[in-house]
Amino acid sequence: MDMTLAEIAQLVGGTVKGDESIRISGLNGLKEAGPGDITFVRSTRYVPLLETTHASAVLIGEEPPNCPVSMVICAMPDLAFAQLLQYCDTEKRRHPAPGIHPTAVIGQNVRIGQDVAIDALVHIADNAVIGDRVVIFSGCYIGHDVTIGDDCLLYPHVVLREDTELGARCILHPGVVLGGDGFGYAPLGGAWVKIPQVGRVRLGDDVEIGCNSTIDRATFGVTRVASGVKIDNLVQIGHNVEIGEHSAMAALVGIAGSAVIGKHVRIGAASGIAGHIEIGDGASVGAKSAVGQSVPAGSTVVGLPAIEFNLSKRVWAGQKRLPELLRRMRELERQVEALENKLHG
Amino acid sequence: MDMTLAEIAQLVGGTVKGDESIRISGLNGLKEAGPGDITFVRSTRYVPLLETTHASAVLIGEEPPNCPVSMVICAMPDLAFAQLLQYCDTEKRRHPAPGIHPTAVIGQNVRIGQDVAIDALVHIADNAVIGDRVVIFSGCYIGHDVTIGDDCLLYPHVVLREDTELGARCILHPGVVLGGDGFGYAPLGGAWVKIPQVGRVRLGDDVEIGCNSTIDRATFGVTRVASGVKIDNLVQIGHNVEIGEHSAMAALVGIAGSAVIGKHVRIGAASGIAGHIEIGDGASVGAKSAVGQSVPAGSTVVGLPAIEFNLSKRVWAGQKRLPELLRRMRELERQVEALENKLHG
Amino acid sequence: MDMTLAEIAQLVGGTVKGDESIRISGLNGLKEAGPGDITFVRSTRYVPLLETTHASAVLIGEEPPNCPVSMVICAMPDLAFAQLLQYCDTEKRRHPAPGIHPTAVIGQNVRIGQDVAIDALVHIADNAVIGDRVVIFSGCYIGHDVTIGDDCLLYPHVVLREDTELGARCILHPGVVLGGDGFGYAPLGGAWVKIPQVGRVRLGDDVEIGCNSTIDRATFGVTRVASGVKIDNLVQIGHNVEIGEHSAMAALVGIAGSAVIGKHVRIGAASGIAGHIEIGDGASVGAKSAVGQSVPAGSTVVGLPAIEFNLSKRVWAGQKRLPELLRRMRELERQVEALENKLHG
Repeated sequence: MDMTLAEIAQLVGGTVKGDESIRISGLNGLKEAGPGDITFVRSTRYVPLLETTHASAVLIGEEPPNCPVSMVICAMPDLAFAQLLQYCDTEKRRHPAPGIHPTAVIGQNVRIGQDVAIDALVHIADNAVIGDRVVIFSGCYIGHDVTIGDDCLLYPHVVLREDTELGARCILHPGVVLGGDGFGYAPLGGAWVKIPQVGRVRLGDDVEIGCNSTIDRATFGVTRVASGVKIDNLVQIGHNVEIGEHSAMAALVGIAGSAVIGKHVRIGAASGIAGHIEIGDGASVGAKSAVGQSVPAGSTVVGLPAIEFNLSKRVWAGQKRLPELLRRMRELERQVEALENKLHG
Repeated sequence: MDMTLAEIAQLVGGTVKGDESIRISGLNGLKEAGPGDITFVRSTRYVPLLETTHASAVLIGEEPPNCPVSMVICAMPDLAFAQLLQYCDTEKRRHPAPGIHPTAVIGQNVRIGQDVAIDALVHIADNAVIGDRVVIFSGCYIGHDVTIGDDCLLYPHVVLREDTELGARCILHPGVVLGGDGFGYAPLGGAWVKIPQVGRVRLGDDVEIGCNSTIDRATFGVTRVASGVKIDNLVQIGHNVEIGEHSAMAALVGIAGSAVIGKHVRIGAASGIAGHIEIGDGASVGAKSAVGQSVPAGSTVVGLPAIEFNLSKRVWAGQKRLPELLRRMRELERQVEALENKLHG
Repeated sequence: MDMTLAEIAQLVGGTVKGDESIRISGLNGLKEAGPGDITFVRSTRYVPLLETTHASAVLIGEEPPNCPVSMVICAMPDLAFAQLLQYCDTEKRRHPAPGIHPTAVIGQNVRIGQDVAIDALVHIADNAVIGDRVVIFSGCYIGHDVTIGDDCLLYPHVVLREDTELGARCILHPGVVLGGDGFGYAPLGGAWVKIPQVGRVRLGDDVEIGCNSTIDRATFGVTRVASGVKIDNLVQIGHNVEIGEHSAMAALVGIAGSAVIGKHVRIGAASGIAGHIEIGDGASVGAKSAVGQSVPAGSTVVGLPAIEFNLSKRVWAGQKRLPELLRRMRELERQVEALENKLHG
């Protein structure tokens, strides 16, 4: 990277305050930045850190008093910075180059788009369809009849079982498994009889899934993850779940079979959603919660079992006072008994 | 698939009500089924859905009034349907064919049974023993001295570390790791000294383990998972655990070292079982529970920490009323004080 | 293994009580040991088990009355035993032999130390640096510019994304993923814009990480895991987390972004630590806890949300009594009302 501050301002649609001829050679966080770097301030809360930064310039929403470095004033500094990072992407040059590595194993009747990169030790089974500019890192397994949309990025060791469908621009991190069998058995004489899982998994566009997360294929039909959904590491999505557009869930979340998650839902880390319930559009679930009943659109729940957020805060406060409550109860009982004795005695 | 309803009835041991000459070409869920499909009704609860199904026939326990499609009446429709699915299995034709793929790496002194399929990029280390008709998908690693029973099915990217033993007909989903070291250290001068884990993992027959789940080898001896046990995705089983026949556990469960789980135990998703305790035969643990003490056979516990199910329901109801309880307590204290003042004043 | 008891005593710095000429051919747990084996007794609690052991000898802290087998008396029998296990290590002979397997794929400008073993189907990308005596099992992926210190041991299917750094003697179990993207997005018009994650992961020396655990790269800078840290299976460490020396965390723990974990911290299984908080040196977190606020050094917290340990025990006791508390409250209210009626009536 080698740009002047003026060029950066033009790229992100901002205005320079200070020396617009400064040459910028790197991008970094406020604490990590050194000379030659540009950094960013996301909120006024972090403005005091500017005094000790070693950055040469900063992307910022509005000019603070006595700013020690040159600035690019722009409406959303974090987005502008993300845009700059993507523009200067140093990662892509380390992606496998377009072409098929000689150690990759490609099945019969596989259709591969333009400028696709298939890294070493990848295995693509029969009848898979790979879109344009897809990058498949080392050691991925693409099952029979899988469809991968344009511009998808699969990091090493992803497994897509047969019939899985990916929209465009999906990012799958290492160890993701899509299309494993749903957990379905019928009891028979004390043992479990497996119910074959003959459905599939379908992701929309721009879905991102974190390391070692798993999404099960439907028993019948489709486990659906809509466009724009973001899923963190070690998350489990059960069979026949449906997740609406732009919902996000943090690490270690589990969603049981046939749950329906609306659009723009946020689920905190390590929470669980019971099967066959519905989380309404725009709802939020706090971290470490156990949601056993449907949640109305727009509401916020938390806890084990999950209850409405404001109530939960008062419940938690009350819980800590339980030992005291028991003591006060005993004291009251003594007082009341004394009163009764006095009145009747 | 192309069978008449009469042929299907014969296969599952049922009786046709309606047109026994209908030709069935597919199997599907009540909602997903279309013309030519047969579907099933598991419980009377779903009978109303028959009015809108597009299926051509249904497997059902008893004849409902005004059923709009032809029926096969049979005792357990879900099992009959699973049986039909297995009979018509469309999956197996997409399994790797028997034989050893040229990119597979096979160690020394490996014994391989009849009609075994070893897919691309599989690695089998020295002295492993593979039973008849085993299917090993792409990219699996089979360690030294591993034994795999007849008819096991290993999906892509399974890792079996050295000495692991599998019974017959086990199914391991992608990313399963068996035989990782148990988590054992001795403290010494503020640091941790590793205790070598020299035991192994042994699965019985018909064990199924979900995607990316992990079972640790024993410190000494064996971590045992008995026949018929079903384990969902992202489950962790610690060293020296023993799990009895036909127990089942949902996703994200963790079982700490040396816990003993009985037969026919059910553990809900994301629950944890402490080390060195015992869960009795037939016990149930609710989802998201933390079980810190042994649980008697046949009982049901839930919560954090887990308590008896009926008590927990009343505790949860009480928790929500904690803010109210504190208010009522203050009010009572005021009243009692007023009474005391009146009596003594 | 073939040593006399005298030789063993010399190796571990202990003294023989009994027949020092006994020949020992194996090492095993108290319950698992047979003739020819030596075992150990970690605490006096297990001394009664000596009566039924089939071992030929025992490592023990002090001589118990009527010990039926020969003894090696030593200060810390568990450590002595671990030392013996490491001395007789039967595992290493099953590690891949030094050298590069012909099916391994090695990128450009990779530097490989002395006596390194690179197993089948390993892929090492450009510019990686591998220290002396490193063992990399089958199917691992080592990304661009990764650095691996001397004597590291990588079990099968580990993924190290670009720029990851490992100190010396680290052990990574199967399926570990280091350097996946942190979970970072900025909201824009109802959708999520990815914030590129351009930092890295750095492990100190002697770090051990369990099967299928994941550690995310920093947004900027470094996600740091200091020397001596031990991490169990299926653990998630978020971006920019810092973990101090010799801390340990059990399975299924999740640590959210930018949390700072001190030295000698212990975190119980399936607990979660919120982002941007600090867990002080020597603190302990109980299993299944949700830590939402910083924890002072040396303290112990547990629960959901986590509170101080002694308080939590009383809160749990109180919770179980909530139904009774509500009953007593109603009874008191009746009594007080009766008293008031009597006084005013």
